[in-house]
Amino acid sequence: MSQPERQLHLNLFLTGMGHHEAAWRHPQSDIGSNLKLSHYVKLAQKAEAAKFDSLFLADRYAVSRQGAKYGLQGGIEPLTLLSALAAVTENIGLIATVSTSFNEPYNVARRFASLDHISNGRAGWNVITSGTDGEAQNFNSKKIPSHGLRYEKAREFLEVASKLWDSWGDDAIIADQEAGIFADERKVHEIHHRGNFFSVKGPLNIPRSPQGRPVLVQAGSSADGIDFAGQYAEAVFTAQQTLEEAQRFYQEIKTRAAAFGRSPESVKVLPGICPVIGRTEAEAKEKEAQLHDYTNTEFSLYQLSNRVGADLTAYPLDGPLPQLPATDGHQSRTKLIQELAFRENLTIRQLLLRLAGGRGHYTIAGTPEQISDQLEKWFKNKAADGFNIMPQLMSEGLDDFITYVLPLLQERGLFRTEYSGTTLREHLGLKWPDTGTVNLSAQA
Amino acid sequence: MSQPERQLHLNLFLTGMGHHEAAWRHPQSDIGSNLKLSHYVKLAQKAEAAKFDSLFLADRYAVSRQGAKYGLQGGIEPLTLLSALAAVTENIGLIATVSTSFNEPYNVARRFASLDHISNGRAGWNVITSGTDGEAQNFNSKKIPSHGLRYEKAREFLEVASKLWDSWGDDAIIADQEAGIFADERKVHEIHHRGNFFSVKGPLNIPRSPQGRPVLVQAGSSADGIDFAGQYAEAVFTAQQTLEEAQRFYQEIKTRAAAFGRSPESVKVLPGICPVIGRTEAEAKEKEAQLHDYTNTEFSLYQLSNRVGADLTAYPLDGPLPQLPATDGHQSRTKLIQELAFRENLTIRQLLLRLAGGRGHYTIAGTPEQISDQLEKWFKNKAADGFNIMPQLMSEGLDDFITYVLPLLQERGLFRTEYSGTTLREHLGLKWPDTGTVNLSAQA
Repeated sequence: MSQPERQLHLNLFLTGMGHHEAAWRHPQSDIGSNLKLSHYVKLAQKAEAAKFDSLFLADRYAVSRQGAKYGLQGGIEPLTLLSALAAVTENIGLIATVSTSFNEPYNVARRFASLDHISNGRAGWNVITSGTDGEAQNFNSKKIPSHGLRYEKAREFLEVASKLWDSWGDDAIIADQEAGIFADERKVHEIHHRGNFFSVKGPLNIPRSPQGRPVLVQAGSSADGIDFAGQYAEAVFTAQQTLEEAQRFYQEIKTRAAAFGRSPESVKVLPGICPVIGRTEAEAKEKEAQLHDYTNTEFSLYQLSNRVGADLTAYPLDGPLPQLPATDGHQSRTKLIQELAFRENLTIRQLLLRLAGGRGHYTIAGTPEQISDQLEKWFKNKAADGFNIMPQLMSEGLDDFITYVLPLLQERGLFRTEYSGTTLREHLGLKWPDTGTVNLSAQA
Repeated sequence: MSQPERQLHLNLFLTGMGHHEAAWRHPQSDIGSNLKLSHYVKLAQKAEAAKFDSLFLADRYAVSRQGAKYGLQGGIEPLTLLSALAAVTENIGLIATVSTSFNEPYNVARRFASLDHISNGRAGWNVITSGTDGEAQNFNSKKIPSHGLRYEKAREFLEVASKLWDSWGDDAIIADQEAGIFADERKVHEIHHRGNFFSVKGPLNIPRSPQGRPVLVQAGSSADGIDFAGQYAEAVFTAQQTLEEAQRFYQEIKTRAAAFGRSPESVKVLPGICPVIGRTEAEAKEKEAQLHDYTNTEFSLYQLSNRVGADLTAYPLDGPLPQLPATDGHQSRTKLIQELAFRENLTIRQLLLRLAGGRGHYTIAGTPEQISDQLEKWFKNKAADGFNIMPQLMSEGLDDFITYVLPLLQERGLFRTEYSGTTLREHLGLKWPDTGTVNLSAQA
């Protein structure tokens, strides 16, 4: 078995019951376990035994009463849950989503450094800007700021956080018990940041963490998002529907990184994939159809309307998706949905089912071979450096992927059979952070 | 062995190396373990095996370069560390310090609800307002707001958090998979809070947690602090030097709670105690003196100056403490230190050593019997409902307390030998939170 140089990276996108919007209604789902730690410990330990690079938790900062009715919650806060999972895992990376719109950089830098310490170097931060008025209304505002302004704030937020992570030099700790000197104060720096959004003196109140900085992850695919990713991200989560689109996006991210003076290998592109696995393609399609049967059109329409920022309840379900208005919310997702409906000539009702399994991520129902073939094709044709695995039904879907798909990828030499490092940075083949990379005035 | 109705409550005040300011210089201290999870797991599991009510972590939001030189750090962020410890303990309560000055109530309510879920009802929140300019300077300000204003904000913060915890009714979750109804939306409430400091729509993005709300803890002993504790706190940490002072404080808290219409039992008063344990009193004093030998006068003076908000380096070390100016920082601590120096007629040098072991908390070097006698005396004479145990040297001091003092307390029927409940609320003998208690306009 030949081991090619380049292997793919796999992240498990954790959710309570699964990524299919009706997963919680499936008879196999134990709804009560959604808020129980034991449920997530099992999933994390399975993913670690299978040698996944990392676990990831998304987040949003609001839930509506109608969303709650149909099973939507924010659920357990990502850093809380991943901190707990750090105590019962040893190797797998832990990527938490935290918004730059509703937090202070000092607190966020401190929490990620803390997670990186307690996990011995496994922390990652999925940087989001948050895009809905419903979220802004939980944080002293009526409306979310404009897309451009949110990213401007995110840039400065990251600048401050990075300065704080670097505020304790790599060799600042002396720990001389006899002399009573813990740190070389010349290597502990105040940062004196003064910007448009934040003023932060520093230093950070915790020494530099095992990875130097957490691995920076990004998931917005708008023009602002791609620019942000090119400048800062070390891994990018993205929703792509076709090989061609994924290739275009992949190329764009790598080019953008190069424009910022970074090597294309310093940012890994991981499209989401929502697999449904069967012994035959027919069995897989049957499983998928069964999950679709649990969907509720009213809820699906509510979700889609929220996602595209337009009320779609007035349009006929069996008619086409109308032209969507420009939005200041999640721009890239709206564009993807519009293109999908147009390309496949879908009615609204058909579109709801196309989105039910993965909210716009690539869904595939097939045999382990078919799925492995697809992953290999994307990986070998510059569409992906790896994948964000999103089981539609969390427990069973993850088990199937690990049992039937992973061994095929390993046989083909595409995925590790053992961890070769101990930190997330090592799993992803990333270098120690270059303390020169973050600079507010950097222009590509 | 008779079991009296009332038993004392014991909290372990966690630190890296110990509460003595020179603990890290002791040859037995493994400095490297200060940021390692394994170190805290060991301590937490020991405290749980000994049936402590809870673990507690303090916090501050800044460190200076000079502080870093002498071993001061914020260390691992409390909620991060306690979330990790939730995964490897089953019964012990987990009390994290979070400031109301540098956080958003939506985030804090969410994080405590999350910790309460993953720990099956063991979360507690030590509410602090933070009192130094150095902290404010990490959060976009030059100076910390006035004492009164900080407490005003803290009150509104707690009001918002409590409304958010109550925003999912106890019976809101239906989880009807067949009908596809997860929650009864009539029992999920928007809170529409609009105040002087915060505007928050709600509901919280996580269902109500096992304890309803985390146990609320408070540690300020100023007039504002006592008022705040009387209104909200379910446990109070406090520094008291003598039985008489402790009795006065105990009475004040209970009276203040009654003035807010609360029962005196609904708030537990837990003075800090820093024990050094020897087979003989002489051995204990010898151990204490050994720790004192590791102190550094320059650092001790720096610490004391910070604590009282006045530069003391200009005063003769062997002269008396000067009259301290009024401060807008930690008022109650300054008062305690001034009174201690005056009562015991201490020079500044002597005062530094009196404070080295516990920063103003009650320090006692003695035999297990002597220490048990003191605890029993305070407990039976309305000075304490229990204690905040602060080992001067973390590992050895905790081991000694568990091995030699706890069995005496248990023989006397003063402390549990088994947990009788599973939640922190049950350990402390507290009721399910009364959703009527939090009201911004409440006036005692």
